[in-house]
Amino acid sequence: MRIAIDAMGGDHAPKLIVEGALEAANQFTDTHLILVGDEAVIKPLLAGKTYSNVSIHHAADMISAEDEPVRAVRRKKDASMVVAGRLVREGEADAMLSAGNTGALMATGLLIVGRMAGIERPALAPMLPTIDNTGVLALDLGANMDAKPEHLLQYAIMGSLYREKVHGISKPRVSLLNVGTETNKGNELVKETYHLLEAAPIHFTGNVEARDVLQRNCDVLICDGFSGNILLKAMEGTAGTIFAELKTAFGSSWLTKLAAAIMLPRLRQLKQKMDYKEHGGAPLLGLNGLVVKCHGSSDVVAVKNAVRQARLAIQNNLIASIAAEINKK
Amino acid sequence: MRIAIDAMGGDHAPKLIVEGALEAANQFTDTHLILVGDEAVIKPLLAGKTYSNVSIHHAADMISAEDEPVRAVRRKKDASMVVAGRLVREGEADAMLSAGNTGALMATGLLIVGRMAGIERPALAPMLPTIDNTGVLALDLGANMDAKPEHLLQYAIMGSLYREKVHGISKPRVSLLNVGTETNKGNELVKETYHLLEAAPIHFTGNVEARDVLQRNCDVLICDGFSGNILLKAMEGTAGTIFAELKTAFGSSWLTKLAAAIMLPRLRQLKQKMDYKEHGGAPLLGLNGLVVKCHGSSDVVAVKNAVRQARLAIQNNLIASIAAEINKK
Repeated sequence: MRIAIDAMGGDHAPKLIVEGALEAANQFTDTHLILVGDEAVIKPLLAGKTYSNVSIHHAADMISAEDEPVRAVRRKKDASMVVAGRLVREGEADAMLSAGNTGALMATGLLIVGRMAGIERPALAPMLPTIDNTGVLALDLGANMDAKPEHLLQYAIMGSLYREKVHGISKPRVSLLNVGTETNKGNELVKETYHLLEAAPIHFTGNVEARDVLQRNCDVLICDGFSGNILLKAMEGTAGTIFAELKTAFGSSWLTKLAAAIMLPRLRQLKQKMDYKEHGGAPLLGLNGLVVKCHGSSDVVAVKNAVRQARLAIQNNLIASIAAEINKK
Repeated sequence: MRIAIDAMGGDHAPKLIVEGALEAANQFTDTHLILVGDEAVIKPLLAGKTYSNVSIHHAADMISAEDEPVRAVRRKKDASMVVAGRLVREGEADAMLSAGNTGALMATGLLIVGRMAGIERPALAPMLPTIDNTGVLALDLGANMDAKPEHLLQYAIMGSLYREKVHGISKPRVSLLNVGTETNKGNELVKETYHLLEAAPIHFTGNVEARDVLQRNCDVLICDGFSGNILLKAMEGTAGTIFAELKTAFGSSWLTKLAAAIMLPRLRQLKQKMDYKEHGGAPLLGLNGLVVKCHGSSDVVAVKNAVRQARLAIQNNLIASIAAEINKK
């Protein structure tokens, strides 16, 4: 297995990305990691050690957070992210990871790695937090703003296979994000999608309301990119606001500071539960190869976890399984 | 001013609805309140007192929470909600309030009170909580699932006038719910709407992301009914889950119970801040008269506040102002 890692993308790149890759290389000796980026910058980070399963693939340029995604991918042919995508397309790597510019990574997926035959729109599929700490795979979370029922059907098939192949869940419960649990609820998009999902080769468990997502009553949550973004950011914003208010409340007197001292470990745990960044990388599904988006703030553990995730997807033939299922239809 | 109150709708109807109406009658002596419902049930609740500005309008039937909205409104011609709507349509009341079945109230608005000329789709406009406790008027929150840009434009005009006339805000800041703050973000619906709002006779302040709604960076939030519902319920569900987890955490030992005792007043305050039920009734805008939806769990204070709100809208000619602005275009 060969996994290409964009060593130059992310808030802590290249240092923590490279360190994370080295830890992964240590742990997963059957996996070859290709660090893509500026050799002059990466080499010193290897700290003189040589790993038989780590190599550097030089890429002179890089895409920044400020770059306009599509233009950057088209013009910066030597950017680390684009080069990593090319390694996947040309079969020199089985997967790529990047913690860089999300829009640019989606463009790299579409323009460099390429869409899978039969897939109309690839989807970004992060894990949303759930209160039992296991998470739910949600797609699409922003790759495709104007989805059609057929796109949502493909998301359901891809998401279900991902949960099965990568997370080992048999018969993952697939639900549709909606404004009510009844069959006839929602806008035209979800009403039509509902019927498609009923007939699909998945374990469709009906509609889920936004207020119940945290309770994890499904394993895969299907939504269009616009509503999915509203859902994710509303959850994030509400949790962030409450924790900020709690911090102020706990800091207001010596007595409340005492209460804070008592509650601190439990509050930390709760905050962590609500943090969707804790749940590893988000695959971009529907491409001719595996592309995993790591959070911009990824550290050593995040990179190692993303490698673990990509490795499982490769071992269990995720991409081939998706292609087979999509082309059956 | 005459305000019709559906005395039979809501979790605490008729008792708390009638009590709330009596308190309002006491406070607002210039306002005549018409209690619509079963006279045999309502009369004893007046406790022998006579109010010169309270009357009972008998309605033999009622719509329950379980009734199928449109069918119930069509068939139950003597239901208290339907009769209250008829009083508005026939000019016998200037406004109506109900804490009953939301879907049925929207149907009453459309089928009994009637759409305002020039308005394509009425909108339900509750206040969402904000952390500074002032709230933001959001519309549409579920009346219209498949909105067009022109509908969103009308929501913006109506919402802006409501904030001005009822809440006394001059130049209310109107924002569009979107996935990013940049002009070119979002799906086709919001991209087109953005341009319409730029040209509209309102103070348009651009896009707002779901994560920033609680920070109250606008006075009116424009969204389609589907996304609006996702936003509201995601906020509600996240806050509810965090408070439930906090409760468990605070209850886990005698030491954490001590911390809970210290923090209780502050936690209560925070919980109240996050509760959208605290922010009064939600007007249904775009009808030939004022219809206010009170929360199902409305108590005496909620009913009194809804009367206050309706009174301000009547005094300041809300409906006529909306009609004038809509027909200018």
